[in-house]
Amino acid sequence: MSAAVGTGDGAGSLSNDIVLLFMPFPERPEWTDRIFKRYGLRVRWVNSIREDKSVISAAELGPEFDGVTLLCTYMPPPAELIPKVRFVQLTSAGADKWLSHPKYQEKSTVFCTSNGVNSPQIAEWVIGAWLSHQHHFSRYHEHMKKGFWESPFATHVQDSTSLRIGILGYGAIGRQCARLANALGMEIFAYTRNERPTPESRRDDSYCVPGTGDPDGLLPTKWFHGPARAAVNAFLREGLDLLVICLPLTAETRHVVGEEQLAILGATRRGFVANVGRGGHVDQEALVRALEEGSIRGAALDVADPEPLPADHPLWRAPNLLITPHVSWRTDVLWDRLLDIIAINLGRLAGGKPLINVVNRELHY
Amino acid sequence: MSAAVGTGDGAGSLSNDIVLLFMPFPERPEWTDRIFKRYGLRVRWVNSIREDKSVISAAELGPEFDGVTLLCTYMPPPAELIPKVRFVQLTSAGADKWLSHPKYQEKSTVFCTSNGVNSPQIAEWVIGAWLSHQHHFSRYHEHMKKGFWESPFATHVQDSTSLRIGILGYGAIGRQCARLANALGMEIFAYTRNERPTPESRRDDSYCVPGTGDPDGLLPTKWFHGPARAAVNAFLREGLDLLVICLPLTAETRHVVGEEQLAILGATRRGFVANVGRGGHVDQEALVRALEEGSIRGAALDVADPEPLPADHPLWRAPNLLITPHVSWRTDVLWDRLLDIIAINLGRLAGGKPLINVVNRELHY
Ligand SMILES: NC(=O)c1ccc[n+]([C@@H]2O[C@H](COP(=O)([O-])OP(=O)(O)OC[C@H]3O[C@@H](n4cnc5c(N)ncnc54)[C@H](OP(=O)(O)O)[C@@H]3O)[C@@H](O)[C@H]2O)c1
Ligand SMILES: NC(=O)c1ccc[n+]([C@@H]2O[C@H](COP(=O)([O-])OP(=O)(O)OC[C@H]3O[C@@H](n4cnc5c(N)ncnc54)[C@H](OP(=O)(O)O)[C@@H]3O)[C@@H](O)[C@H]2O)c1
Repeated sequence: MSAAVGTGDGAGSLSNDIVLLFMPFPERPEWTDRIFKRYGLRVRWVNSIREDKSVISAAELGPEFDGVTLLCTYMPPPAELIPKVRFVQLTSAGADKWLSHPKYQEKSTVFCTSNGVNSPQIAEWVIGAWLSHQHHFSRYHEHMKKGFWESPFATHVQDSTSLRIGILGYGAIGRQCARLANALGMEIFAYTRNERPTPESRRDDSYCVPGTGDPDGLLPTKWFHGPARAAVNAFLREGLDLLVICLPLTAETRHVVGEEQLAILGATRRGFVANVGRGGHVDQEALVRALEEGSIRGAALDVADPEPLPADHPLWRAPNLLITPHVSWRTDVLWDRLLDIIAINLGRLAGGKPLINVVNRELHY
Repeated sequence: MSAAVGTGDGAGSLSNDIVLLFMPFPERPEWTDRIFKRYGLRVRWVNSIREDKSVISAAELGPEFDGVTLLCTYMPPPAELIPKVRFVQLTSAGADKWLSHPKYQEKSTVFCTSNGVNSPQIAEWVIGAWLSHQHHFSRYHEHMKKGFWESPFATHVQDSTSLRIGILGYGAIGRQCARLANALGMEIFAYTRNERPTPESRRDDSYCVPGTGDPDGLLPTKWFHGPARAAVNAFLREGLDLLVICLPLTAETRHVVGEEQLAILGATRRGFVANVGRGGHVDQEALVRALEEGSIRGAALDVADPEPLPADHPLWRAPNLLITPHVSWRTDVLWDRLLDIIAINLGRLAGGKPLINVVNRELHY
């Protein structure tokens, strides 16, 4: 699939264009060189982080914007500085910061997101947290402090080969969770907002690190859809051992996993809940109760509501839970992937081909 | 591959045979029924565990052995009880208990092992321990006790997409580790005792849970071999982020990872060591030193020397280490897999086909 290749196809030229990369890291000269050689494109690079770690805002720049037609940025610059810009590559997953910006109103300017740069590491976090739980690693870490070699028969272990994962939000992150779960031998149930009745509709053309994910949507054995809570409940009622929440937070998805959904998860297979979406997806009070009652087997949360979670919040003390401080997106190759997306889109602009990760102007991501 | 299918091919009959399953769990009538219907085979089943959990020895049985031609057992029964037996399915991975047994001297009796029943859960343990380390889960478990929401920038994370795994012992367990590592996007280097120069030689026909492993040996990009320590060192010098030890323990493999090998691992990519073989594979004193110096990034041991590891052993206090008490083989579906192997081999006996997991009469596994 086009989205899975390295650097676009290189057809065509951008010799009349100037791209400005306003990035939170220093120039990578080999990248700049390669892009210049490939497309005849003038590349300007401004590191938005000063040596003292303070942040430069786009409004502080001036001549750097002269003649710029293509822009990569996190924050929007004042509209008068970027009259010629026809393509904006965001370094974030959503366009929330641009909603009232005049450039964003122009339908002729294309906006693209960084969707897909986080999927490998977040899926590692999800499957790592699941396996840690299933294999009792935190129990053994406690035993190490006392030098206690427990009988191997003291705990019960279920491996994943006959278990089922349900992925609420089968997008970039969800598809790499599926790839790992498939290697573990799990059965995969997918959930999306929109129905995916045909092979074409199951594809996802957004950026995907080569060799990861499920760009063609081939791994799920069942596919559910729709924003209605009743549809989510029907999905949960199928019986899930592991539920992954990797949705955007919207009015529709707020508390998508609450009292009722936890009761269903508990009643079927005592499902484990992994939330890497947003804290608001889960009713935390209901989750604390379910964990304390032991009606679900456990949970792992990389996100909370609010963040930081206050030190006296009852979640910290709930059993069979892992909380991490919104770190699952962290990786040392994040910017390499963003530069990869930019290179792909420049290649497609040069060749007059459709771009990847184009922002949906109604949903803004 | 033949070894990956469910229950053999059902051709032929075993109506003149009697199989005795002397198993550490109660009869599964649906299994017995199915086997009887399929091959006309008389099935006898003795649970070797009494209600009070005490163990019945094979020597305590009598008439149960009359006419038995096919036997499934852990311990060897007295030779005079099993004159007609021509096939022995062991419930263990090795034939050590049989070495001096008269039946084992007869080359006409085939012995088969339970090789492959442990691979999914042990590979989960390996990759779970690796991801737990890479994503700092034990650190966050400690923070939870204090209700501490750390800055996401306090730790450094490397995801596995550009990292390399080296698998010392590319057998049943190693191949499922490779499958998971491949889904993570890792590069895979394999190591076996024997050279594997051709596609045929890379195949492994031993039992493999369907949908797991790498039975065709397609995943490694480089393959190393040989019992010599110099060959192991050359493999380590390639630079490994994760070294998995899943070898049998033999005179050749004792302390296969010692001072020198840890120094190489440290000097190249600060590799992590996961040992699920036997405690004797690793020089534990050298490992404690490497962990204390931080020359390797960490380690995970499911096996130790001796077991149980004494409470005052320095390993318990080494940093960046997970120790579990020889539990990685544990799973609730272990016996289902063993019954699967038996069913496959009965099917092959009935059809006059070569069996799977046949014991090598020189190596005894
Ligand atoms: N923890 C972190 O550090 C971190 C980092 C990055 C992202 N995230 C979170 O993860 C989310 C997913 O990221 P992604 O890159 O995988 O996004 P993505 O590729 O856009 O996928 C989102 C998925 O959610 C589905 N969805 C949207 N609204 C839904 C609804 N009301 N009901 C059911 N499904 C719905 C979408 O279905 P359709 O395609 O049919 O619309 C799509 O399958 C982000 O929105 C963010 O909240 C967290
Ligand atoms: N922790 C636990 O609970 C647990 C449970 C089960 C097994 N184990 C351990 O794991 C080991 C592997 O199990 P498995 O089922 O994967 O066995 P397997 O399928 O027999 O594979 C063993 C592998 O080790 C290689 N090997 C043997 N001697 C070697 C040497 N001197 N140098 C380099 N490679 C050598 C073999 O190569 P060739 O094929 O070329 O001989 C083969 O690739 C067992 O022997 C046991 O020690 C531990």
